[in-house]
Amino acid sequence: MIYLDNAATTFPKPPEVINAVNDILTNHGGNPGRGGHFFSRICGDKIFECRENMAKLIKADNPENIIFTKNATEAINLAIKGVVSRGDEIIISSMEHNSVLRSAVNMEKIGVTVKIAKADLSGYVSPQEIELLITDKTKMICVIHASNIVGTVNPIKEISHLARKHNIITLIDCAQTGGILPINAADFDMLAFAGHKGLYGPFGTGILYIRNGLNIDTLIEGGTGSFSESALMPLSSPDRYEAGTVNACGIAGLNEGIKFVLRENVYEKEKELSKRLKELLFNIKGIHVLGKNDVGVFGILFDNKDCVEAARILDEKYGIASRAGLHCAPMAHRTLGTISKGLLRLSVGYFNTIEDIERAALALEKIILYN
Amino acid sequence: MIYLDNAATTFPKPPEVINAVNDILTNHGGNPGRGGHFFSRICGDKIFECRENMAKLIKADNPENIIFTKNATEAINLAIKGVVSRGDEIIISSMEHNSVLRSAVNMEKIGVTVKIAKADLSGYVSPQEIELLITDKTKMICVIHASNIVGTVNPIKEISHLARKHNIITLIDCAQTGGILPINAADFDMLAFAGHKGLYGPFGTGILYIRNGLNIDTLIEGGTGSFSESALMPLSSPDRYEAGTVNACGIAGLNEGIKFVLRENVYEKEKELSKRLKELLFNIKGIHVLGKNDVGVFGILFDNKDCVEAARILDEKYGIASRAGLHCAPMAHRTLGTISKGLLRLSVGYFNTIEDIERAALALEKIILYN
Repeated sequence: MIYLDNAATTFPKPPEVINAVNDILTNHGGNPGRGGHFFSRICGDKIFECRENMAKLIKADNPENIIFTKNATEAINLAIKGVVSRGDEIIISSMEHNSVLRSAVNMEKIGVTVKIAKADLSGYVSPQEIELLITDKTKMICVIHASNIVGTVNPIKEISHLARKHNIITLIDCAQTGGILPINAADFDMLAFAGHKGLYGPFGTGILYIRNGLNIDTLIEGGTGSFSESALMPLSSPDRYEAGTVNACGIAGLNEGIKFVLRENVYEKEKELSKRLKELLFNIKGIHVLGKNDVGVFGILFDNKDCVEAARILDEKYGIASRAGLHCAPMAHRTLGTISKGLLRLSVGYFNTIEDIERAALALEKIILYN
Repeated sequence: MIYLDNAATTFPKPPEVINAVNDILTNHGGNPGRGGHFFSRICGDKIFECRENMAKLIKADNPENIIFTKNATEAINLAIKGVVSRGDEIIISSMEHNSVLRSAVNMEKIGVTVKIAKADLSGYVSPQEIELLITDKTKMICVIHASNIVGTVNPIKEISHLARKHNIITLIDCAQTGGILPINAADFDMLAFAGHKGLYGPFGTGILYIRNGLNIDTLIEGGTGSFSESALMPLSSPDRYEAGTVNACGIAGLNEGIKFVLRENVYEKEKELSKRLKELLFNIKGIHVLGKNDVGVFGILFDNKDCVEAARILDEKYGIASRAGLHCAPMAHRTLGTISKGLLRLSVGYFNTIEDIERAALALEKIILYN
């Protein structure tokens, strides 16, 4: 099996990730922060270590600004719903994933206005497009770091600086870039990450970074193991945003995933693989590669082939895992002109080899010629 | 180590639970429902199997009414916030955990009124107490199945029937009873479960059951891998309520946990252990066991000892894991008269032995006499 669906979730995981999950489940399964005994403490220590390592990765000065969620989607919902309220405007880009689009649009029912900054045909969102939409009611700007369909990277630092000039809060959706592209937390208000993608952690893990001094509304209230006597959530991060039992085994695994990306140069490896894939795809007649592919995500359009059918043949005949159709980002497909048919997506990861890439390109050539 | 903190999270887990988590992470780590390839399908099949087994456990006729959340707290937040809105009244009991209390109280800011049905000194909530609070504005009743502090079981079926008579929606918090006490989904509108407690699954798993025909608001919106072209969440369960990548490895483990409780008679085992613990505790001078302990949860009050100190000695000197203090349920502590000092909680699980129980009782006796 050749796995080229790393933008959905990375596979395989480094062995130490799986071992850490195992170790918590087998040997240290106490509920972290809910009991003072040995088991709980070991578990709690692992979780704090993960906060520290994530803070190190994004150069955040305070590990307590790292909040664990179940996935990037929860992180994004927490960020958006925690900030905007009736009468506010939120600007999102036309390349956003449904995690941003659907949660923002859901806020319309309470009187929030959603404005869409249109990306160009490569999926690039310019600060100028965003600036056109800013009014004195703009509360928040939310932009995807790199497209989950075509890998185009957006100028998030410029967008954040523009927002700061206008006193607007930014959220960057780093689901496709966390662990791959460098990011400096000091430049942003909030950053959302998927633990199971470029951070090489297990399913069931996501992260929201919230900068010092920014106190937002909670999305989920419940037990925190702290200030238990109050019917209100504590004010301090991370407890305020982490009600209920956290995914302790998942976070222990994520900790190892983050240590892995701190140690290895994932981006260099992906760049090398992406370069080769781009060269090969460029020379195949009957397909078009859309976007900029700044990270290893390739959206492929066929002249005369249904992309879902191509993905099926890749899977069944060639043992190659890809993804086809609409990729939970309808506005992005409209921007790219692929809403009716969708795209075939190939996405590389650290554990792919040049041989994987070459076999995938060859398989695509054969599918176009013979199937 | 003797583990008597099973009400916080059960430990150990059956080996097949850990193996299933491992297998997904090692061999089948595709994103379920997000790609058509082999990896994704295996993962998706496991998740559906877990829905089927949970439906079997609670005698629900439709596996699609089983919704996976990150923990019981998310399930409870989804249920409460999905149902009540401005002008509504919600009745909760005074024995509720902070997951219910804090999420209900949080709704006051949008104009929801929270009414508290007072439990008696044993922690029992009578349907009569609830009925006194019902008005034509009552939208929802939320009651804990068994107290997480003293194990008192509430008459949830009668409460639900009372609610149905008044056209009120019920939510039962089964965090402490799922997998232990039998429950018949047909009697209820919504049931919330913690996957990592009596269902013997891993951390990062919870369940909300929503009956056929009850369509509630979403808590989190995002990608569902279905109806991707729409900016609104799909209407059909479970997709409507499961935005973002689910905890596939956790759910595969939970599936094995549920199969374990379907196979074994956890309740009979816990009854036997609880009976012995109750006998032994009853004969120790200087302590009082509160509540009814209908499930294996014992809240212990000392005459002349700080409960946090007792838990520390149990841990450090005797290798016994317990929990002390306030147990994320301040109203329950007020009901029981233990808000100032809290309680020491011992909670049994399937893997405890009579010897564990006897050693714990002996340790408590020694602590009272000598420490």
